[in-house]
Amino acid sequence: MGPGSVRPMARRYDTVSFLSDFGLRDECVGVVKAVLRDLAPHAHVVDLTHEIPPFDVRAGSLALARAIPYVPSGVVLAVVDPGVGTSRRALAIEVAGGEGVFVGPDNGLLAPAIAMAGGAERCVSLIDDRYHLPSPSATSAGRDVYASVAAHLCNGVDLAELGEAVDPDVLMPGVVPLPRDEAGVVVCEVLWVDRFGNCQLNVGPDEVAHLGDPVRVSAGDPADPTVRVAARVRAYADAGVGAVGLMADGSGMVSLVLDRRSAADELRIAAGDQVTLAPLGEGERPGVTTSVELRRP
Amino acid sequence: MGPGSVRPMARRYDTVSFLSDFGLRDECVGVVKAVLRDLAPHAHVVDLTHEIPPFDVRAGSLALARAIPYVPSGVVLAVVDPGVGTSRRALAIEVAGGEGVFVGPDNGLLAPAIAMAGGAERCVSLIDDRYHLPSPSATSAGRDVYASVAAHLCNGVDLAELGEAVDPDVLMPGVVPLPRDEAGVVVCEVLWVDRFGNCQLNVGPDEVAHLGDPVRVSAGDPADPTVRVAARVRAYADAGVGAVGLMADGSGMVSLVLDRRSAADELRIAAGDQVTLAPLGEGERPGVTTSVELRRP
Amino acid sequence: MGPGSVRPMARRYDTVSFLSDFGLRDECVGVVKAVLRDLAPHAHVVDLTHEIPPFDVRAGSLALARAIPYVPSGVVLAVVDPGVGTSRRALAIEVAGGEGVFVGPDNGLLAPAIAMAGGAERCVSLIDDRYHLPSPSATSAGRDVYASVAAHLCNGVDLAELGEAVDPDVLMPGVVPLPRDEAGVVVCEVLWVDRFGNCQLNVGPDEVAHLGDPVRVSAGDPADPTVRVAARVRAYADAGVGAVGLMADGSGMVSLVLDRRSAADELRIAAGDQVTLAPLGEGERPGVTTSVELRRP
Repeated sequence: MGPGSVRPMARRYDTVSFLSDFGLRDECVGVVKAVLRDLAPHAHVVDLTHEIPPFDVRAGSLALARAIPYVPSGVVLAVVDPGVGTSRRALAIEVAGGEGVFVGPDNGLLAPAIAMAGGAERCVSLIDDRYHLPSPSATSAGRDVYASVAAHLCNGVDLAELGEAVDPDVLMPGVVPLPRDEAGVVVCEVLWVDRFGNCQLNVGPDEVAHLGDPVRVSAGDPADPTVRVAARVRAYADAGVGAVGLMADGSGMVSLVLDRRSAADELRIAAGDQVTLAPLGEGERPGVTTSVELRRP
Repeated sequence: MGPGSVRPMARRYDTVSFLSDFGLRDECVGVVKAVLRDLAPHAHVVDLTHEIPPFDVRAGSLALARAIPYVPSGVVLAVVDPGVGTSRRALAIEVAGGEGVFVGPDNGLLAPAIAMAGGAERCVSLIDDRYHLPSPSATSAGRDVYASVAAHLCNGVDLAELGEAVDPDVLMPGVVPLPRDEAGVVVCEVLWVDRFGNCQLNVGPDEVAHLGDPVRVSAGDPADPTVRVAARVRAYADAGVGAVGLMADGSGMVSLVLDRRSAADELRIAAGDQVTLAPLGEGERPGVTTSVELRRP
Repeated sequence: MGPGSVRPMARRYDTVSFLSDFGLRDECVGVVKAVLRDLAPHAHVVDLTHEIPPFDVRAGSLALARAIPYVPSGVVLAVVDPGVGTSRRALAIEVAGGEGVFVGPDNGLLAPAIAMAGGAERCVSLIDDRYHLPSPSATSAGRDVYASVAAHLCNGVDLAELGEAVDPDVLMPGVVPLPRDEAGVVVCEVLWVDRFGNCQLNVGPDEVAHLGDPVRVSAGDPADPTVRVAARVRAYADAGVGAVGLMADGSGMVSLVLDRRSAADELRIAAGDQVTLAPLGEGERPGVTTSVELRRP
C-alpha cells in the first residue's frame, strides 16, 4: 500500500468449522488440524463431519447448509474437491460483513451455505502462494492451500491479501433439487439419510399440508415403488411399531421416519431417490391398509 | 429473587464430556459442538464416543459407566434417546457436591454412571425453554435442549434455573445384568465387544477365582455352544496362538481375549450373549483339549 | 538431586498429537483424552487418526511418518501395541533438542517418524509408576501409562524423571519395504490405500522417471496380475474416465489413481500388495492398449 494509506485493523478469527470427505480412517483430517494448530495455535476447530461420501459435492453442500445456522463466527473450511489440481478455483468468500469466511473449492459445495449466511460479499481466488505450504503435489490442496489459508485468516490476514478478487456473482451454484407438484401429488427427492435411517425430503411441512393426514408414500423405483401409508407424527415413538411416519425434522424439513428402525431400509431408498407423497384415495382408510407388517429377513 | 436475597456465586464449568449414538457420518455431532462453541466458547469438549449403536441405551450406559472414573469435573452430556419428543423427561443431575452435572434423557442411560459418581444429588426436568434453542422439531433435543443447557451450565447458570425440581429417587434405573452362580458354574453376559474383539463379561476376577485355572468357557446359544478351555492371562500375547484367555481388563472386569485376533469371532458372540464359565472336569486336562485349531475360512 | 545442584527450568508442552488403533466405536479414545484433559487441562489434543487397522504396527508407523512433518511441537502419543502387558518396553523419546517427545511402545511404531524428526536423542523406559494411573490390568497402558505420561510431560516433568535411560541406538527399528529394480522393471509395494482408493507406492517420482510415460502397471498376484497402462498425471481429473494414472502425491511419493473412482478396486490391490512398474514394450503404444474399459459389476 502507498504511503499514507489507511488500512483497517485486520480481523482475527478463533474458530474454524471444518467439513470434508476425507474420512477418519487415515491421517488426512489429522494433518489438516495439525497445520491449523501449528500456524494458528489460538484457533479452535469444530469438526462438522468428515464422512461425506467420497467426491459427493451435493451431499457435502447439503450437510454444510444444514449446519450453517449453528456454526459460530469464524472460518468455515469445507473440502469436497474431486477437481483438485485442475483449473477449478480455490476460494475464500466473506459473508455477513466479515462475521464469517468460507474457504474451499468453487464447485458448488459452498453455495447453499453461503446463501443461507446472507450471500457472498468479498471473494478471492487463492493464488498467492505465500499463504500456502510448499507442496509436492497439486492434489494436497486441503492441507497445503485451504488449511494454510484458513490459519492465516485466523491470524488476521485480510481476505484481499490471499489472491485475486473474484466477482461473487460468478461462483459455481449449488444444485438443490426442487419438489414438483403434479396434479396434487408432490414429487420429492431424498436429500439425506441419517444414521438412524430417517429420510429427509426436499419439502417443508407447509408444502405438503394440503395432502391431509395420513398420506400415501411411494418410494424408490417409480415402476415398482414401495408404498406405505404414513401418519403425521411429532416424535419417532409416535409412529407405532413398524409404521412409517411423516415428521417435521430438526432442519425444518419433512422426514420419513420409523420408531427405532430405519425408514430407508423399510422403504428401500437412499439419498437422491425419488419419493412421491399423495393424499389417500377413497377406501384407503388407515387401519385397512396399515403398514404394519413383519420385517423382511 | 426478592431484594436482599443472597445467592451463591454460580459455578462455572469448562469441560463438556460428550457421548451419543449420533455417529460421525453426518453433521449431527458437529452441530452440537458448534452450539457449545457458540454459546460457551471457553468450554472444551471431550468426545467420549458417538458410535454407540443406534437407540442402544444399554450399550451407552455401559460405555458411560466405564468412562466416568476418568472424566474430568464438568458437564457430562449423554444422548441416546429413542424416546425423544415423547413424555420421557430431559434432565440435568448434579453429583459430588457440584463437581459434575449430567445432562441427558431420563431413560436409564445416565443411571450407572451417576451411581459410580456417588449418586444423584440435585435434579431438574429441563422445561424452561429460555435455556433452549428455538426448535423446528421435538426430535432435535440433542442440539436444541441438551447442548444448549450444557452450554448454559458452563456459563454459570445454576441447575435450579433450568426447570422443575425432580426427586432424584424416581429416576429411571439402568439395567445392568447380574451374573448367576448355578451349581458352581457362573452364568455371565457379554457387556461389550471392543474393536479388537475382546469380550467383557459382567463378572469381576474375584467372582470367578474359585473356578480354578484354566476354566471351561461355553459361549453363545446354550443349545449349541462354542466351548473352549481358557487359561488365565495377564496380556493378550500370553494367550498363545489361537487360544482363548481369561483376563482382568482395564475396567477391572473379566474379558475373554485372543492374541491379535477377535475372541468375539472365535466364540461367535456379541454384546448381550450368554457365556458360562465352569471348572474343568476330570480328564479335561489342558494340553489334551487345547483350543488351538485352524482358523475357519 | 543433591543440594546446590542446578536444574534447568522444565519444558512444558501444550499440544499432544495422538494416533492409535483404538477406533472410535467405543470410549477408549475418549477416555485417553479425558485423562489428558484431567491431568493437563492446558494441553490441546490433535487427533491424527484412531482407525489404524487393529494391531497393524506397520500401517500405524507409515501414517505417523506421513503426518510428522506437519505435527506441531509437543508430545506425540502413538499407541498400536499388540504386545501390551508383555516385556516390550514403553518409551518416551526426545527429538530435535526437546522440540518434541514421542510416547509409545518399543515395537517399531515410532521409528520411521523419529527418523524423519532427526533421530532419537534422549530415551527412557517408562517404569516409574508414580507417573502412571493406578491400573487394574496390564493391558490398559494406553490410558494408564502412555496418556498419563504424556500429560505429565505437558506439565513440565522432565523425560529423565519418567524411568530408566535407554540407549537410543537399541530401539526396535521400523520395517519400511524398499523397492527393487529388476532388469529395468521397478518392483514396488503398496504402502497405503486412502479413503478414495488411491494407492501409495514405496517409490518416489525420481525412482521411476526412467520408465518413460506412460508405464505398464502390473498389480496384485504375480501369477495373475491385473495389468494397465498408466499415464503420468498431475490431478485425478487428468487421468481420463476409467484410466489409471501415476501421480506424485501429497507425501512426495508415487500413487496410482483414478478419477473419482478407486484405483485399489480397479487394480484389486490392498496395502502390502506388490506392484511392478515397467516401460511400455514395442507395439504397446497408448491408444492401442488403452485401459479404458467398462467397469466390472
